[in-house]
Amino acid sequence: MSRLLCRQFPSRLLCRARPAQSFRCYASTPPIAQFNWQDPLGSKNLLTAEEQAVSETAEQYCQARLLPRVLQAYRDEHYDPEILREMGDLGLLGATIDGYGCAGVSSVAGALITRAVERVDSGYRSSMSVQSSLVMGAIHDFGSAEQKERYLPDMAKGKLIGAFGLTEPNHGSDPGSMEAVAREHPQKQGYYLLGGSKTWITNSPIADVLVVWAKLQETGKIRGFLVDRKQCPAGTLETPAIKNKTGLRASITGMIHLADCPVPKANMFPEVEGLRGPFTCLNSARYGISLGTMGALEDCIARARTYALERKQFRGNPLAKYQLVQKKLADAATDAAYGVLAAIQVGRLKDEGKATPEMISMIKRQNCDRALHNARVLQEIFGGNAVSDEYGIGRHVANLYVCQTYEGQSDIHSLILGRAITGVQAFV
Amino acid sequence: MSRLLCRQFPSRLLCRARPAQSFRCYASTPPIAQFNWQDPLGSKNLLTAEEQAVSETAEQYCQARLLPRVLQAYRDEHYDPEILREMGDLGLLGATIDGYGCAGVSSVAGALITRAVERVDSGYRSSMSVQSSLVMGAIHDFGSAEQKERYLPDMAKGKLIGAFGLTEPNHGSDPGSMEAVAREHPQKQGYYLLGGSKTWITNSPIADVLVVWAKLQETGKIRGFLVDRKQCPAGTLETPAIKNKTGLRASITGMIHLADCPVPKANMFPEVEGLRGPFTCLNSARYGISLGTMGALEDCIARARTYALERKQFRGNPLAKYQLVQKKLADAATDAAYGVLAAIQVGRLKDEGKATPEMISMIKRQNCDRALHNARVLQEIFGGNAVSDEYGIGRHVANLYVCQTYEGQSDIHSLILGRAITGVQAFV
Amino acid sequence: MSRLLCRQFPSRLLCRARPAQSFRCYASTPPIAQFNWQDPLGSKNLLTAEEQAVSETAEQYCQARLLPRVLQAYRDEHYDPEILREMGDLGLLGATIDGYGCAGVSSVAGALITRAVERVDSGYRSSMSVQSSLVMGAIHDFGSAEQKERYLPDMAKGKLIGAFGLTEPNHGSDPGSMEAVAREHPQKQGYYLLGGSKTWITNSPIADVLVVWAKLQETGKIRGFLVDRKQCPAGTLETPAIKNKTGLRASITGMIHLADCPVPKANMFPEVEGLRGPFTCLNSARYGISLGTMGALEDCIARARTYALERKQFRGNPLAKYQLVQKKLADAATDAAYGVLAAIQVGRLKDEGKATPEMISMIKRQNCDRALHNARVLQEIFGGNAVSDEYGIGRHVANLYVCQTYEGQSDIHSLILGRAITGVQAFV
Amino acid sequence: MSRLLCRQFPSRLLCRARPAQSFRCYASTPPIAQFNWQDPLGSKNLLTAEEQAVSETAEQYCQARLLPRVLQAYRDEHYDPEILREMGDLGLLGATIDGYGCAGVSSVAGALITRAVERVDSGYRSSMSVQSSLVMGAIHDFGSAEQKERYLPDMAKGKLIGAFGLTEPNHGSDPGSMEAVAREHPQKQGYYLLGGSKTWITNSPIADVLVVWAKLQETGKIRGFLVDRKQCPAGTLETPAIKNKTGLRASITGMIHLADCPVPKANMFPEVEGLRGPFTCLNSARYGISLGTMGALEDCIARARTYALERKQFRGNPLAKYQLVQKKLADAATDAAYGVLAAIQVGRLKDEGKATPEMISMIKRQNCDRALHNARVLQEIFGGNAVSDEYGIGRHVANLYVCQTYEGQSDIHSLILGRAITGVQAFV
Repeated sequence: MSRLLCRQFPSRLLCRARPAQSFRCYASTPPIAQFNWQDPLGSKNLLTAEEQAVSETAEQYCQARLLPRVLQAYRDEHYDPEILREMGDLGLLGATIDGYGCAGVSSVAGALITRAVERVDSGYRSSMSVQSSLVMGAIHDFGSAEQKERYLPDMAKGKLIGAFGLTEPNHGSDPGSMEAVAREHPQKQGYYLLGGSKTWITNSPIADVLVVWAKLQETGKIRGFLVDRKQCPAGTLETPAIKNKTGLRASITGMIHLADCPVPKANMFPEVEGLRGPFTCLNSARYGISLGTMGALEDCIARARTYALERKQFRGNPLAKYQLVQKKLADAATDAAYGVLAAIQVGRLKDEGKATPEMISMIKRQNCDRALHNARVLQEIFGGNAVSDEYGIGRHVANLYVCQTYEGQSDIHSLILGRAITGVQAFV
Repeated sequence: MSRLLCRQFPSRLLCRARPAQSFRCYASTPPIAQFNWQDPLGSKNLLTAEEQAVSETAEQYCQARLLPRVLQAYRDEHYDPEILREMGDLGLLGATIDGYGCAGVSSVAGALITRAVERVDSGYRSSMSVQSSLVMGAIHDFGSAEQKERYLPDMAKGKLIGAFGLTEPNHGSDPGSMEAVAREHPQKQGYYLLGGSKTWITNSPIADVLVVWAKLQETGKIRGFLVDRKQCPAGTLETPAIKNKTGLRASITGMIHLADCPVPKANMFPEVEGLRGPFTCLNSARYGISLGTMGALEDCIARARTYALERKQFRGNPLAKYQLVQKKLADAATDAAYGVLAAIQVGRLKDEGKATPEMISMIKRQNCDRALHNARVLQEIFGGNAVSDEYGIGRHVANLYVCQTYEGQSDIHSLILGRAITGVQAFV
Repeated sequence: MSRLLCRQFPSRLLCRARPAQSFRCYASTPPIAQFNWQDPLGSKNLLTAEEQAVSETAEQYCQARLLPRVLQAYRDEHYDPEILREMGDLGLLGATIDGYGCAGVSSVAGALITRAVERVDSGYRSSMSVQSSLVMGAIHDFGSAEQKERYLPDMAKGKLIGAFGLTEPNHGSDPGSMEAVAREHPQKQGYYLLGGSKTWITNSPIADVLVVWAKLQETGKIRGFLVDRKQCPAGTLETPAIKNKTGLRASITGMIHLADCPVPKANMFPEVEGLRGPFTCLNSARYGISLGTMGALEDCIARARTYALERKQFRGNPLAKYQLVQKKLADAATDAAYGVLAAIQVGRLKDEGKATPEMISMIKRQNCDRALHNARVLQEIFGGNAVSDEYGIGRHVANLYVCQTYEGQSDIHSLILGRAITGVQAFV
Repeated sequence: MSRLLCRQFPSRLLCRARPAQSFRCYASTPPIAQFNWQDPLGSKNLLTAEEQAVSETAEQYCQARLLPRVLQAYRDEHYDPEILREMGDLGLLGATIDGYGCAGVSSVAGALITRAVERVDSGYRSSMSVQSSLVMGAIHDFGSAEQKERYLPDMAKGKLIGAFGLTEPNHGSDPGSMEAVAREHPQKQGYYLLGGSKTWITNSPIADVLVVWAKLQETGKIRGFLVDRKQCPAGTLETPAIKNKTGLRASITGMIHLADCPVPKANMFPEVEGLRGPFTCLNSARYGISLGTMGALEDCIARARTYALERKQFRGNPLAKYQLVQKKLADAATDAAYGVLAAIQVGRLKDEGKATPEMISMIKRQNCDRALHNARVLQEIFGGNAVSDEYGIGRHVANLYVCQTYEGQSDIHSLILGRAITGVQAFV
């Protein structure tokens, strides 16, 4: 299967550079005159041929290979690291990065991949986002040439797994108050000692390389460190899994405990200082979430629509015939269509250097909020049957709650937007 | 523990008949001049001393004995039948029934018990509601004298466990279309053969006695049957559990498969015919849910409030200091306070013979909807931490979704109310 | 008409003292077994016979005498002061006050009067609330014996009209920052000179006596003053009307400009100091609003229901047959029923000395919010026809917006509740 | 003023044909790196230079010429027909039509004009929409060559005013049941006699030419007729104004009564039959509304933002500092930004022949709903001051209610979408 995809795909995705002239794909398409409930506002019209191809390959992979695994994985809270290697084979990891064996596609194409993955499960998407946007992105944007060469190619193939350590137990929405610290190694020259704890870290229990943000003791400034698990002496790095999660159970989440863990100075990101580093990475990840969650919502719509057409009550009418059901579907389809357009727009601006963090706050917040809200409303269509996990909608609902809270809880983004609109901050 | 409760409680709850003259408890209470966030509109003022005592006993038992079990039970989808026996010891089962070893308390008192139980978990409450309202209620209201004597006393003690088989795989909101059938036994006189399947049946895998509603073949009318598990020949009754539920995991749910199961004619409810039977029982259960879900919501408020006071972000301020957080708490507290008042009012009318099914549709719908909505909003206060099941709020959220859908999905109650208001039916 | 009412009514309302023993009216009522969409949760059951009689008299008057006037009055922004005299004749003014020619009924009965008036128009209710709760209430609670004797009897008859000057142009939600000031008269002994401006003052252009809150220069503390228009020298008191209002157009609203207006010291409320004075009055007025707005909402329900039954679209079906329409009606009826119960409960507690200001914040906020929200949703049933003012629903919608904002804007009450729940203030 | 605009504008808008090669305007723009609260998602980036120029000219005209008139016009329910002539001078009428003196701009450009007008007032936009989309659009799409030549040039200049008669008193959402009828004139050859009534017809009292849809008696099919007021014998055409409207008071609305009004057969649209005719026109008008209402919402945001920055409460903080206020602004800005993108997207598809009516249902419904909802929420920021009509927000709120109901009430569009998504209709 994956070989088949590889044949048709990397020829395009991996081997070609970005096309000199991006073109609108609809040039040769015959006019569509029909409403398509899966793309109500014709967003496909905005995609280049390359982007469409990337999207199709990702969708095929996800439906063929991820979907069959997710039900059991979610039940068992099991994450199979093989998934990242499969994604790597297809060129889906770090896809927006140019070079280092990455595909170098547009931001929109990158987000179409997240949409395909999240159509199956937000946990799978989370794992991929961490690998691609947070870790590979951080290394690409802030790493030294040597750091890039050393990690990016293997991460692109999924041979090395990354984790991103920012959030601490006592500092969720306010990372600036972090307590993790890096201090000069008292004996070993050229080394720092890292101490502190991070929590809610996707992939941490299985990660080979962990980007850890900590305050450099001598300056008090936040810096980024590449903690390479195989270099850490026993007992200095622990990454216990957090179990019994109420959502995102198909991904693995854990803590990072660093106890005087020696890290070579060469593993510190050379330039970036303060919150700019982590926030730049989060920005990319949030962008991916904004289109990713639309995939989850679209899957909820498709599932609810099918159920509503098949389930009959009262004189043999399908549920789809009831006005109250139709309104739920109409509302959800509208929010999905709007959310997709907004995400494509910001992706375009991003590639033109015109996107601002507030734009990403806006679409991350809105798309997560609407995905969650509509998923819940669509769940009502299933009535009591939604209690069976086989309908899948309950899983999306539980996952989307998490998406709404991580990488900037919804209210925090409201206040970021409020500040951007008024010029007045209201965090305190 | 339970003995202690027994000492102080059944003397009051079990041994006394209903007081000749119900009195308002506040007669001798000194004026409360302070706002109490746990009872914002002073609903306690509406309770008799007996009702307050019942409530306190139930609350003590639930906090002391149920709360410590629920986290693990929910994780494991495990229900301990011992719970019903403990409740039986305390007189909490079938508490509104007069006689047969039941406590004979007011409808409000009965609902205060459900509130206490659901404050811990809706699954525990479901199991108790089925035992008390659906099964004991059905036997009490429609059973022959002999049926009552045979089942009620042991059910009141929790020695026999009941289940209520109405919903079928293809007929959720529309039970009138049920397919289960009872036909004259071709050989064995005085027996019917029951065939058909029921699903989403709380307690079914562990039930000793199952009330099964089926169409009597000779009349086509719906009748109720007491299926006594120990009387069923092997292979004629199966009650497999439904696993991997997305909510109510602390209760046990299953199917009922009847394959030519012989049931004595004496086990049929003698009088009641049509949907009046099951709907009467549902009415009582729904009434209990209306106050029960307020208990779950109140627990969410208490948990969110504690978290908001303890969790500090941005310059050491507790989350409780943020306007967006305060609004969530204020909204939830308001809905809880209103919902409690409405449930008490309908309970009073019920005991006076003035409650109509539409009133119960109204409070069942509204209280479930608002409990679910507010629980979700309060969950946001926990941010990413809500993903840890130890905070409990995610469990309430998942449970309350189920409460909103069972015993009349919210939209169905909307249409019942719409019909009552306009005189026009819109079920199509 | 009004004479007829007088014959049947004041014999009960005005001439009798409060009954020695308040009794529940349902004692002798035959069981109601039918759902009544106008009182879905049987709130009538909670009223004494006296309260029911007061309510019926008020409803009859309002439907017979106010309803026919309101359409034109609203169009023209005209308020007829005769209305207060008619209300006075019926004993509807200051009805909860004992003595001074007032009816001395329960808080619930007083609020049933506001419900009857607001069922017609919130503007009429506002005018009455100001007279009864704010002005007569202030005089009764804080006035000297002489002040009471001088003003209350004539105000009760509607011969003197009152206004209540608290809000200032720059201080709406935060009256503690008021700028109005009373200073010792430099020449005239026993007099203060009042200066300052008040705005959004119901009745001010037609008021005979204005309660004005101002800071006493010598102490800096807020005090209350009875400004008697006929005693004010020309040019010292001006009360221009505010025209072109977007709501409450059937009441008259204005400003109060005081320019060194001499007021006898004997006209100052003798005891009360600080915000306790105005807040006590507001508390009573807010309580009335909480049940009053339910009257407006109930009228919206009645109007929408009638329209939905009469208006036919698509194959001759009445709009009432559509699920989307039924849901709107069901939601509104539920909120109205809940709101009425909550208001009755707080009224009972009020009379028992157990109501707290936060309770009133809760029901004022919730009932205004839900009345406004549902009125807007019900308006949708009228489609384009709601643009015609003759359907009345647009008027309620516009009025209810104002009710939501005055006497504590909804968000302010949220923060009051948030503070009461958490113990932390977030007004900033 | 208008001459000034003419100098800079028609050179571009009127005299040039559509550019051979539409180009993206951002080609030469320096990167914007700053968040712009007035265009949060950079929609300007999607506009051609021509579209931006059209938009700016329209905005300038509207702010300079319409804004100063609207307050008084709304108070007085007065519409000045001169406005259409001014718009005609600027080329704003029928702007998407090619030829006949029309500007021939893109659908997006046309909608940018409606946005500019509706930023001032939805009533002004309604009047223009009727002229441009409904009447000129109908003539252009369905008229004979002669009809086009006769009416379009003068309508483009605003010398002739149009009205569109579809809705009847008893048939709002269901025009297929219309009762208006055209029958062969019994005496006068080449003439029909038109009879029937239309209501809620924008511009009808001042219209020179009225497009009236009626059933042709001989076929029972709906046909369109150009009723030319100056050709109608006295007493056969009456167009009384509807007064005392609760919204859209700055536009004029009326009825059309036709009493055996003789209309030349040559005034019937030659080809179109059935509802396709009116629905095509409505489709265009609805498209304009979808972007137009975003203008109204954007104006509400701007007004609320200004107010929140200027109004200070509690220790001198501007309202803008309060989280509850910031959230309202953030929500509204998000919905406006999303709505604009969706409308631009559908405009692009429209010009490519790929837009479907369901797409327009989706954006008409969503943008009207969100504009109305957010306008109401923003109004809360003004507190009691919103009652003064000078703040303008109350006017937008009242107008937007009408926009939500006309040209397809929101619920009707929900059902259109529901049908498109499920393939099942639920109108009955």
